[in-house]
Amino acid sequence: MKRLLHTPEGVRDIYNQECAKKMVLQESLQKLLEQYGYAAIETPTFEFFDIFGQEIGTIPSKDLYKFFDREGNTLVLRPDITPSIARAVTKYFSDEDMPIRLWYQGNIFINNSSFQGRLKESTQFGAELIGEDSVDSDAEIISLVVNVLKAAGLKEFQVSIGHVDFLKGLTEAAGLDEETVEELLQLIANKNFFGVEELVEPLPMEEPLKKLFQSLGDIYDSGEELQSAARLAAPYPRIAGAINRLRELYELLACYQVESYVSLEFGMNSSYRYYTGIIFAGYTFGSGEPIVKGGRYDDLLPYFGKNAPSIGFAVTVDQLLAALSRQKIEIPLQKKCRLVVYEASWRREAIAWARERRLAGEKLLLLPWQEGKTGEDYRAYAARFGCTEVLFWNAGQAENVPEEKISNAGQTEDSPKISKAGQADISPEPAMEGRVVL
Amino acid sequence: MKRLLHTPEGVRDIYNQECAKKMVLQESLQKLLEQYGYAAIETPTFEFFDIFGQEIGTIPSKDLYKFFDREGNTLVLRPDITPSIARAVTKYFSDEDMPIRLWYQGNIFINNSSFQGRLKESTQFGAELIGEDSVDSDAEIISLVVNVLKAAGLKEFQVSIGHVDFLKGLTEAAGLDEETVEELLQLIANKNFFGVEELVEPLPMEEPLKKLFQSLGDIYDSGEELQSAARLAAPYPRIAGAINRLRELYELLACYQVESYVSLEFGMNSSYRYYTGIIFAGYTFGSGEPIVKGGRYDDLLPYFGKNAPSIGFAVTVDQLLAALSRQKIEIPLQKKCRLVVYEASWRREAIAWARERRLAGEKLLLLPWQEGKTGEDYRAYAARFGCTEVLFWNAGQAENVPEEKISNAGQTEDSPKISKAGQADISPEPAMEGRVVL
Repeated sequence: MKRLLHTPEGVRDIYNQECAKKMVLQESLQKLLEQYGYAAIETPTFEFFDIFGQEIGTIPSKDLYKFFDREGNTLVLRPDITPSIARAVTKYFSDEDMPIRLWYQGNIFINNSSFQGRLKESTQFGAELIGEDSVDSDAEIISLVVNVLKAAGLKEFQVSIGHVDFLKGLTEAAGLDEETVEELLQLIANKNFFGVEELVEPLPMEEPLKKLFQSLGDIYDSGEELQSAARLAAPYPRIAGAINRLRELYELLACYQVESYVSLEFGMNSSYRYYTGIIFAGYTFGSGEPIVKGGRYDDLLPYFGKNAPSIGFAVTVDQLLAALSRQKIEIPLQKKCRLVVYEASWRREAIAWARERRLAGEKLLLLPWQEGKTGEDYRAYAARFGCTEVLFWNAGQAENVPEEKISNAGQTEDSPKISKAGQADISPEPAMEGRVVL
Repeated sequence: MKRLLHTPEGVRDIYNQECAKKMVLQESLQKLLEQYGYAAIETPTFEFFDIFGQEIGTIPSKDLYKFFDREGNTLVLRPDITPSIARAVTKYFSDEDMPIRLWYQGNIFINNSSFQGRLKESTQFGAELIGEDSVDSDAEIISLVVNVLKAAGLKEFQVSIGHVDFLKGLTEAAGLDEETVEELLQLIANKNFFGVEELVEPLPMEEPLKKLFQSLGDIYDSGEELQSAARLAAPYPRIAGAINRLRELYELLACYQVESYVSLEFGMNSSYRYYTGIIFAGYTFGSGEPIVKGGRYDDLLPYFGKNAPSIGFAVTVDQLLAALSRQKIEIPLQKKCRLVVYEASWRREAIAWARERRLAGEKLLLLPWQEGKTGEDYRAYAARFGCTEVLFWNAGQAENVPEEKISNAGQTEDSPKISKAGQADISPEPAMEGRVVL
């Protein structure tokens, strides 16, 4: 029977305060996205295998949850939502030649080897700006990323921005073979930039390229700092294009007043192969993994059949919540709640009264009086379930709860208050004539 | 490539107004549940097979989506959320001996044979009141069901309430064999009450029981109407208990002022075998299926190891949305939005201005001016994406959009307005000195 209580490896229940905070967080992120003109979209939890196949390049096939439909087609629990949205937009907005803004929230599923200890089901909240290749759209998305993290309550975080053409252009111009590129990417992934220098040093290439390789580990805090790299890259259009895009982007981020949260890094890379332009990741302390990731993917919609350059981001909600919790940042939960305990003989009056209070917007938890419970029990219960006050409705039965037992014992500043007749915090209610408040 | 655009049979994308409405609806239902003291919980999308196995009795195994984890355990996409919550509560609230109130929202998956044309993935919104067997808790849940449907905007709907002990007690007292019970249930499911009479007539049983069988098709609109049935059932404790519970429940529903939405039906039954007490279903026109279902399940948590009687309901959100749409009931969407079109040379000013307006709570959609587009194009775009006004920010370039093209052509009352300098609905903004408004 014990086995029955377990969830499968890598998935979990979310409840109590953690779940309440998740709801509040998601709601505030939604509001923000709506303000920028993004519209909600939901795609199915599972799709045909092809949507996440090799060509798209999200997650290796072995890490996908796969099963069959009744016709024998392979279905996949989505490991990523962007390809689904690309499919949906191609299908439903095929004639739209102007920008489409969408936000989504949903769970993704990656069947990691269990020793990695990562969640296999996690919640993503994200947005896609489809049909624009301007640097304006890059800037809007980065500005949203920063404002999403601020709206979540984070004070200290960093969004690192790079451009896939920097590395691609660099390895192309240097004429590196596939094997060397693989080795290089591995070194960069491990942030082993000394290793990068060692790898590049003996290779035959022009001097500016060597210098650009050396800049892979650098972190720039302004567009101007890219000038010397831009001069070095001038003869190499793909690299120069990447650097100029980043410079122009940085300038617009200043208009959004988010530039102080941003750094530019030539060494940025992503395992998602569909990215074609800028890529970015947001970090804060208390989370080893990025809390937000994204980039430009101009070739993804064309793959599905719509010629539309696009950019988007996804917040890993679970990582963000964990970081907020470790940084002791409070997410403001809903308003105070009163526990109303009533005797069976007064339940009609208690229910009718509660109905009216709720119509007036109050949050009330109703509880029939239980034999054998004391005032202390009710106060403890109220505290467990987030009530700040206990109201007893048991006309004539006040002696059931001895005064000394309920009023002080074990009470801290955070304990729910026990209300007494005549206390200021219970406003007299005409409907409450039958009550005795302890 | 065409195949790539399809979603698997029975699942679908939700976007545009439909998705926006779904979000607004879900938010208002959440607020209502929170007001009654319910707390959010999320359980995993897939569970071990046992959670939904034969003993629990939700959905036949053949209709479950099954797959394997890396260790070879059978996993199942949840076809129902209540068993998962029963598992989670047993695990995390094992010592709680007072009521636990939880609400949830999530997708469920039932691999119907495709010819049924039903959705295989659908969204459920529901609540569970765990740890109370009082009629008070029955009444709270039914009151919530009615208020949920009212909050959704429905005006005309009906919640049918029955009690599983009526049928169980009746077939027990009449000594029906398993085969006859099966036949009876089939007749009831088809609402063939004439068939029920035919089936029962030749069977040997006491006269009151025959009369009670005849009442299976009756619909009662008040507790008093049950009195004659109660007299007939007096010698049969299980049947009498069911009738009395329904009478007492009806009385409390009057305190909640929801009794006019309720009918009592002895013939109510459910395919979910875990129900032990009252069961109910909510109907409205425009939906063939119930839009809400639920009941009391006192044996489910004990199955997982916690001795806690419980009751809950689940709204099929997709059915509810479809019904609202067919009944032409509006779900109020978010506030108005302005489309701001700007020339490239003014983008810094436009972005900085938009930033301020958004901080002040405004909803704005930014769009760089595109070569070859006309004022008409922007107005049509604004209409497609829910904007009520278009604001052009293109200092000195007013001639790009001929007055006659933008101001009247094709404009209906619902068309977004094109703003002009000096119009009352654009308040002067100090930051907007550089603009020319058409």
